[in-house]
Amino acid sequence: MSERGTATVAIGPALIPGYKPVVHMVGMVLIATAVLMQCPLLLDLYIGDADWRAFGIASAISAVLGTVMSLSTRGALKTGLTLRQAFVLTPSSWFSVALVSALPFYFSGYGIVSHSPADAIFEAVSGITTTGATVISGLDHAPPGMLLWRGLLQWMGGIGIIASAIAILPALGIGGMQLFRTESSDRSEKALPQIRQIATTIGGVYVGLTAVAITVYWLAGMQPLDAVVHGLTSIATGGYSTSDASFGAWEANGIQWFAALFMLAGSVPFVLYVRAVSGEARALWDRQVSTLLLFLGTVIVGLGSWLFLSGQYDLEPAFRHATFNVVSVVSTTGYATTDYSAWGNAAVGVFFGLTFVGGCTGSTSGGIKIFRFEVMAIMLRTHFMRLLYPRGIFLSTYSHRRLDDDVIGSVVAFFAVFFFSYALLTIALMAFGLDFMTSASGAATALANVGPGLGDMIGPAGNFGLLPDGAKWLLSFGMMLGRLELFTVLILFMPRFWRG
Amino acid sequence: MSERGTATVAIGPALIPGYKPVVHMVGMVLIATAVLMQCPLLLDLYIGDADWRAFGIASAISAVLGTVMSLSTRGALKTGLTLRQAFVLTPSSWFSVALVSALPFYFSGYGIVSHSPADAIFEAVSGITTTGATVISGLDHAPPGMLLWRGLLQWMGGIGIIASAIAILPALGIGGMQLFRTESSDRSEKALPQIRQIATTIGGVYVGLTAVAITVYWLAGMQPLDAVVHGLTSIATGGYSTSDASFGAWEANGIQWFAALFMLAGSVPFVLYVRAVSGEARALWDRQVSTLLLFLGTVIVGLGSWLFLSGQYDLEPAFRHATFNVVSVVSTTGYATTDYSAWGNAAVGVFFGLTFVGGCTGSTSGGIKIFRFEVMAIMLRTHFMRLLYPRGIFLSTYSHRRLDDDVIGSVVAFFAVFFFSYALLTIALMAFGLDFMTSASGAATALANVGPGLGDMIGPAGNFGLLPDGAKWLLSFGMMLGRLELFTVLILFMPRFWRG
Repeated sequence: MSERGTATVAIGPALIPGYKPVVHMVGMVLIATAVLMQCPLLLDLYIGDADWRAFGIASAISAVLGTVMSLSTRGALKTGLTLRQAFVLTPSSWFSVALVSALPFYFSGYGIVSHSPADAIFEAVSGITTTGATVISGLDHAPPGMLLWRGLLQWMGGIGIIASAIAILPALGIGGMQLFRTESSDRSEKALPQIRQIATTIGGVYVGLTAVAITVYWLAGMQPLDAVVHGLTSIATGGYSTSDASFGAWEANGIQWFAALFMLAGSVPFVLYVRAVSGEARALWDRQVSTLLLFLGTVIVGLGSWLFLSGQYDLEPAFRHATFNVVSVVSTTGYATTDYSAWGNAAVGVFFGLTFVGGCTGSTSGGIKIFRFEVMAIMLRTHFMRLLYPRGIFLSTYSHRRLDDDVIGSVVAFFAVFFFSYALLTIALMAFGLDFMTSASGAATALANVGPGLGDMIGPAGNFGLLPDGAKWLLSFGMMLGRLELFTVLILFMPRFWRG
Repeated sequence: MSERGTATVAIGPALIPGYKPVVHMVGMVLIATAVLMQCPLLLDLYIGDADWRAFGIASAISAVLGTVMSLSTRGALKTGLTLRQAFVLTPSSWFSVALVSALPFYFSGYGIVSHSPADAIFEAVSGITTTGATVISGLDHAPPGMLLWRGLLQWMGGIGIIASAIAILPALGIGGMQLFRTESSDRSEKALPQIRQIATTIGGVYVGLTAVAITVYWLAGMQPLDAVVHGLTSIATGGYSTSDASFGAWEANGIQWFAALFMLAGSVPFVLYVRAVSGEARALWDRQVSTLLLFLGTVIVGLGSWLFLSGQYDLEPAFRHATFNVVSVVSTTGYATTDYSAWGNAAVGVFFGLTFVGGCTGSTSGGIKIFRFEVMAIMLRTHFMRLLYPRGIFLSTYSHRRLDDDVIGSVVAFFAVFFFSYALLTIALMAFGLDFMTSASGAATALANVGPGLGDMIGPAGNFGLLPDGAKWLLSFGMMLGRLELFTVLILFMPRFWRG
């Protein structure tokens, strides 16, 4: 009784005061979102497309909401965040941004099949999580403001997840990311200037890489808006395109090879760029990066050779399609040059498996991520050794750091929760009447933030528009869950979290 | 160079002498198999079916091989087994028995579509591993000897896995089974009489339960041979039937309810029966058993209500079909009363999920098994607590035993290797051209030793006969891998295992 009593009090009136700093920061993020909405608004106004009104209403709502939230909690940030507040902050900002970012889609209604909130939310979540699954067909004729908004959403989501992966997740001990805990994750006074500097450099690298991508796409023949949107969504490993045919609509001047390079650039830990920029060029030859490259190389050579030898493509297209689409799925971007699910059952199996992999942690890509597979492999090797030498003592290291039980346990918990959520999501999607392949690949592509699923409906040649609303809500939740590395969201469902 | 040199020597001429005790015991097992083959041989002779010849040739080969192996290594057992020998013993006996057990199928050829060794091996492996997937159609007209042989194979496999789970796997530290290490798993002199007594009692319980099942089936209206085969394959949670319609061919007198009960009886740890027999009736209310019952109850009530409320069945059939088929899949038996994959996508999703679960350890059932899910759940709960209280210390127990890191690590390694093998097997099956659902469910049903897959081809209404040979080999390996709890087989692929 007494414990329950306490819980009620904590959830009740005490909640808002306890989370004032969170409300304040969410308010600031909403204001930033409203500001960002001015870009598509102005573009539509300039072009003379009436769709600017959708952005007008949306940004007004966003700005008012954000201002009320941050003004009413002024000064709340002075004391810093507690562990609990830090846990609440991450999902609340992401969910709030997703909500207001959906407003332009809702008010515009272009390309939204069912004109339902589910569609608008799905599109916004898929954007902000850099997933890239879309409910919109007819992108080639969409209002330019909306295309730009989709690109900006992913771009904002990309830098958002890099920031979380560096500043918040390691400190929370999520999914083994404490392995990457550095001084910059400490919340001590001294570390603050260093954090600022790293953040500035990372922001600079992010903007710089995006600018390079936009320029290259433009020089390779894309129209300016197409170049801008694809530049934004390549570095963010997001995958939103301005054409229903995705990168299949652009082929000349080696543009697909360049795109593969930019997606790869987005799946590298951004702290490495910071170190490379400050003179340590060899920093890029990181363990995660080399494993990622080795893995990609193996799969691409295998798939490309098979596409060529089986006579499906000539030599250059075989390796171009293999490289582009493998990099696209593993980096969790989700562009496609062609419908790779038509390459046969074996290819479908390979792409299904690739959906789970993901890039490096600290990058914009999603999925399980390379370092977790490496930690798992090290754990298994140790386990086999222990079976053979029951009295042996085995120490493991990763990138010159000792792999302690805490990290291994977190990585293992991540895998377990990932696949458990995956199984539940798949079964839930089947309960909405979707077939096995659509459910299994839809759940995977959502949790791993890739984009396209497999099968006729949601495969690389289809889109998510015709799914029932319930499935869209489930997948939206799945994308958010995956993007926030599961635990930040799930821990809020623990009754104990809200107590005392 | 020197290390390689040593390895060569160990694999070369030194191998056989080093594994003399293994060769000896495998020889004994082959002789026992030859003896068991006399049952179908005599039955066919008695009925006057020419198929007895297949058993004649097979048992002769088996007996000669077994005699040569055990006579040439006489006295090798005196010294007891080393850890390495124990690791080699388990897979070698199972693989050898599978090989000679396939001979009758190969020589008979009845119902074997492609007359290939792949078919014969598949059927024998599916039998000995108590999986129950079959390549034979036309069971209703099959020679009685072959039907009996399929039943006996599963029955032998059932008691074989109980023995392994009690006497060998805990001592090897496989997949967390050290949690069930008792004095009986010690290899000390004192424990031997106790082992003998437990083994005798378990054997008695196994024979007794089988006799009860056979009698009940017979009283409920089955022909004697049908009653015998189903009795053998119910307690063994094997699932081989004497009809292509499986238990759909018998419905009167509540026989399907009884069958559900017998499958359940086969998925309970057999040591509990020993304790119950020796007066501790409450021993059956074990943690694994109660979790299993709770899980089954929840799924059955949910599925049964849905079948009834959605108007697919009347009340009794709704709950009968739900109970039978859920128990059949979770106990990894694999009988079916009807084609449950026709119940809609949601049901397909549920049955796909159930394929992985499995019964209790120390029983005849396969799958991941209840206690591993419980250990995983405890591990995850602790992990969430640790996220909330980073400085807290958390101790976990399971059934009044402390869950130490060794057990948790083994369980985690089991899950990891299970799902990794599962993913590889699925992709490999797709590479043979099978569609996604056939591959994904076929890999699951093989590794978990359930029996039927999903989809038109290998679903509960189909069989495995039309798969390409390569897929049959892969699935045979998968069944064996799953039955032997993965590590006993995989450790033999470690180069280090064969060194020094």
